[in-house]
Amino acid sequence: MATRNRQWRLKRHPDPGEMMNRDLVAWGEGHIEEVPRGGILVRTHCLATSPAQFGYMKPGPGLFEKIHIGDVIRARGIGQVMESRTPDFSVGDIVTGSLGWQDYTCLHPESAGQSIKTVQKEPHAISPLHVTLGTLGVDGYTAYCELINVAKPKKGDTLLVTAAAGGIGSLVGQVGRILGCCVIGIAGTDEKCAWICDDLGFDAAINYKTEDIDVRLAQLAPQGIDVFFDNVGGEIMNTALAHIALHARVIICGWISTDYKEGPIPGPSNYTHLLLKRASMIGTIVWDHIEDWPDASRHLRQWVKDGVLIPTEDITEGLENAPDALASLFTGGNRGNKIIRVAPDPEGLGIL
Amino acid sequence: MATRNRQWRLKRHPDPGEMMNRDLVAWGEGHIEEVPRGGILVRTHCLATSPAQFGYMKPGPGLFEKIHIGDVIRARGIGQVMESRTPDFSVGDIVTGSLGWQDYTCLHPESAGQSIKTVQKEPHAISPLHVTLGTLGVDGYTAYCELINVAKPKKGDTLLVTAAAGGIGSLVGQVGRILGCCVIGIAGTDEKCAWICDDLGFDAAINYKTEDIDVRLAQLAPQGIDVFFDNVGGEIMNTALAHIALHARVIICGWISTDYKEGPIPGPSNYTHLLLKRASMIGTIVWDHIEDWPDASRHLRQWVKDGVLIPTEDITEGLENAPDALASLFTGGNRGNKIIRVAPDPEGLGIL
Repeated sequence: MATRNRQWRLKRHPDPGEMMNRDLVAWGEGHIEEVPRGGILVRTHCLATSPAQFGYMKPGPGLFEKIHIGDVIRARGIGQVMESRTPDFSVGDIVTGSLGWQDYTCLHPESAGQSIKTVQKEPHAISPLHVTLGTLGVDGYTAYCELINVAKPKKGDTLLVTAAAGGIGSLVGQVGRILGCCVIGIAGTDEKCAWICDDLGFDAAINYKTEDIDVRLAQLAPQGIDVFFDNVGGEIMNTALAHIALHARVIICGWISTDYKEGPIPGPSNYTHLLLKRASMIGTIVWDHIEDWPDASRHLRQWVKDGVLIPTEDITEGLENAPDALASLFTGGNRGNKIIRVAPDPEGLGIL
Repeated sequence: MATRNRQWRLKRHPDPGEMMNRDLVAWGEGHIEEVPRGGILVRTHCLATSPAQFGYMKPGPGLFEKIHIGDVIRARGIGQVMESRTPDFSVGDIVTGSLGWQDYTCLHPESAGQSIKTVQKEPHAISPLHVTLGTLGVDGYTAYCELINVAKPKKGDTLLVTAAAGGIGSLVGQVGRILGCCVIGIAGTDEKCAWICDDLGFDAAINYKTEDIDVRLAQLAPQGIDVFFDNVGGEIMNTALAHIALHARVIICGWISTDYKEGPIPGPSNYTHLLLKRASMIGTIVWDHIEDWPDASRHLRQWVKDGVLIPTEDITEGLENAPDALASLFTGGNRGNKIIRVAPDPEGLGIL
């Protein structure tokens, strides 16, 4: 049994306007906690990244609990149970949940430490595990639940997705395509634009760094955008709002373009189009749709099996590179779902 | 039979930033059109006002058809059929619809002129007619349909209404109170704040000119705002967004505070709270809910009859004062539903 537990802990909160970088976190080794009665020890195999994680490091209001100085950086991950002192889990079980930037996480039965309630068994886990964590996990559920159950696109609808080459965007666009939408993605490089069109089947892409979004949307969506799935906020979101169609649904999933901005961010003055077009702007998170996850899981697995949904994980090798992996989300360095591989997949996993 | 038809016509479009004023319109007399086969002639008794009317006078995109230079100013009104060449209407019928700032409006069967399809019979019209036009008309329908059917408040919800002493706001707040909401109104004078609390039964009021809205909302709605019915936009709306509760519904009814602003208006940077609170912002107009008007009408009449809904019409006497009546909406000069009385009520009307 290993005793080495490499960890990244929060060294300091980011200054206003400071981007994610290695100086915010400290690398070191911690002990592996003794598993209490009712608890389990999980070995981390893969860790997901999310712009929200950087939000946890910042002080101020937020959706989820903050990370305090000295804490291990919280992260959703997939791992294997190494030790169990509860009948609910067996050694060898694959679990997903809140693990953190470390090799081993001890999950406690009560609020004394990290709660076992934050992890769940993955009886259908397949190799490679990063697909189970990403496309077939919370990122896939986000795309499925927020697009299908909240935005309710119809066949033939025009769907606009921002950060379209990102983890969520690359899945949202594909789900929209599977539903029969005309899918337009906005991304930041020609290479990403080509990828989402050629490999992922988007109908069109706009490079926001080199093209005029307003002009391009007028060309690509002359009848307007029926569903606008926004991950970026800021000026791109505001421009797109001027192109919504009657009864459009705008999903607010995030605002990565303004996450680093100091002080008040510019608001979308084109919110007035919500009235002009009798449209809705809806904030929703995947955790509000847990009852729909089994349904999402079935569909996502089938689509991947059928080859119509392409998993979009983008792997960074090694826990030691976790800070760079997270930072890449904010610099556009990722292509798809940025996952940190901490350890190779265990033997004996199923395949789809 | 009268032959005199006093009229206000559009003289010029407002300049950017120009407020509503008499110089935009020209007073004169026109002839009374000969009623074509299939048409009717309606004598105007009362005219409603709406911030949207001023929008029609401005060039650029908008929800409804624009008013062109030389056109009679379009306005929703209530009047009596003086002449009919269609079996659908009889002389003496009371009708509401698009009449205009004039004594007599000829309604045509086809698109050759103002269409008869824009007016409807009011078989339940009561005296005073301004109540039929306002509280029991489209303004009441707006409050009823947009609050009850779109925002869906529950008993005990906290409802925030802006422009609370305005035509729509004064009715929305009362309907909320009837439904058992805790109703907070924002208005621009202490006198209006006292009126909505003392006479209309709002639970609390905030004078946005003398009080800190952020501080007051924290005091008055510590659990957050469940339904936010916004008529004003701008900074007030943005401040209020920071106080929404989990799963709040924000109704966008208008943005009178920025209607005069030149260039891009500031957007609500606090739209991010829609995600933090998994809330919705919904643009809706009363014309999208026509199928619910009969239901709204029944309830509104009963509430007025029971004395729990106080009609809030604020009468300006005389067609000659129509421009000032409209301008008063933008300067806060009205208290309730600003109606222009063009002619006294006809004899023989029912009462509630």
